[in-house]
Amino acid sequence: MKNFKMILQYEGTRYQGWQRQDTSENTIQGKLERLLEKLAGEPVEVQASGRTDAGVHAYGQAANFKMNTDLTPEELRDTINRYLPEDIGVIELTEVSPRFHSRYNETGKIYRYRVLNSPRPHIFDRRYVYQVPESLDIGAMKKAAEFLIGEHDFQSFTSAKKGKKSTVRRIDEIRIETVSDEIQFIFRGNGFLYHMVRIIMGTLLSVGKGELDAKEIRNILTAKDRQKAGPLVPAKGLALMEVFYE
Amino acid sequence: MKNFKMILQYEGTRYQGWQRQDTSENTIQGKLERLLEKLAGEPVEVQASGRTDAGVHAYGQAANFKMNTDLTPEELRDTINRYLPEDIGVIELTEVSPRFHSRYNETGKIYRYRVLNSPRPHIFDRRYVYQVPESLDIGAMKKAAEFLIGEHDFQSFTSAKKGKKSTVRRIDEIRIETVSDEIQFIFRGNGFLYHMVRIIMGTLLSVGKGELDAKEIRNILTAKDRQKAGPLVPAKGLALMEVFYE
Repeated sequence: MKNFKMILQYEGTRYQGWQRQDTSENTIQGKLERLLEKLAGEPVEVQASGRTDAGVHAYGQAANFKMNTDLTPEELRDTINRYLPEDIGVIELTEVSPRFHSRYNETGKIYRYRVLNSPRPHIFDRRYVYQVPESLDIGAMKKAAEFLIGEHDFQSFTSAKKGKKSTVRRIDEIRIETVSDEIQFIFRGNGFLYHMVRIIMGTLLSVGKGELDAKEIRNILTAKDRQKAGPLVPAKGLALMEVFYE
Repeated sequence: MKNFKMILQYEGTRYQGWQRQDTSENTIQGKLERLLEKLAGEPVEVQASGRTDAGVHAYGQAANFKMNTDLTPEELRDTINRYLPEDIGVIELTEVSPRFHSRYNETGKIYRYRVLNSPRPHIFDRRYVYQVPESLDIGAMKKAAEFLIGEHDFQSFTSAKKGKKSTVRRIDEIRIETVSDEIQFIFRGNGFLYHMVRIIMGTLLSVGKGELDAKEIRNILTAKDRQKAGPLVPAKGLALMEVFYE
């Protein structure tokens, strides 16, 4: 069996997220696996670097699958693209070592969150931005973001219930950039918990609106209590941009 | 009655074009007029600088309408945007002279056509680009475009039947730019006939693929025969970018 690594793009709008579900077929993983099963003549399991939630987009999701085929990687990529719905695409496909696993070998990720900071709508990118018409204090948000850099227990910033699994993660960078009438938030780290980027975003926006002091971030972290952090922002502003491997 | 000028954006994908039709309500003009009629309490007619066809987008369509209202232009703009579907937006709204008419006073327009020149799909902009995976000779297309600059009878480049109306138009500029994996074609002129940009595009792409010699453009123009020009390309790559007034 050959092992193939894919870089995937998808618009998450009409999907229930990455992960295959028993009853419904409307997941990215489900679409890919059913297509590959037809090509391979036997079930194929597709592993991604991690799940993305319903409505979240991907510019550079990484995934791998094992399959017997005589097609070259380019031919396989083009064949898959021909049968995929137009909101999912394989950007790169390469044969990799049989030991490569897109989830276990992953060392970090970049997410981007796009805030449309204008009272006027974005007609063409409306599915990819979250509109916040109020003026936002970018300096305060940058100050707040600084408190999140480094290794912390992010229990306050996840919707996952407290359990045995560690909620310690390391954020290497939060870059906040103004791009015309947008503010883009770039998150780079070694791993992100369930809803973590979207709850951090809700918290940073509370700071930007002046509802929360930047210094409060420290107290929210130490509280380890989801109730202390800001609201969950909509999925549509979020995109998985890149996945890193050794 | 006050006269208001609007700059509109819309994604044409799910509309039968700009112009209101008797039986169907799925036009941009129809959506705007029904909304304004509710706000005004009486019928309001919205005039655009010109029609756009089904599936064609607009980044800067100009239109005007007359209405009695005490709202400021900003309030009126925000009210309209609140009730418009999310694929139509009013970008600017200003009160103008009662004599201003968006069609009669128009002096020129810019259209853009986006060609995705790659075998790989564009997931996020798929509704706004026309994919041509073959390699294209940009030099030859630029040479061909030169023959179209200036005032010509564009009868060969329109789907409109021959009639009494003049098919003479002036193209001031055709700019062909490579933007990452796209080729963008910018057309500036004093007016464009029915399907004119899309037939010129089909002809330029035939030149780019080597199916037609650039010099043939001259013969196509003088033939005044739609059959001599290239095919009509899909609407989705086309957008009305800007409308000029004195």
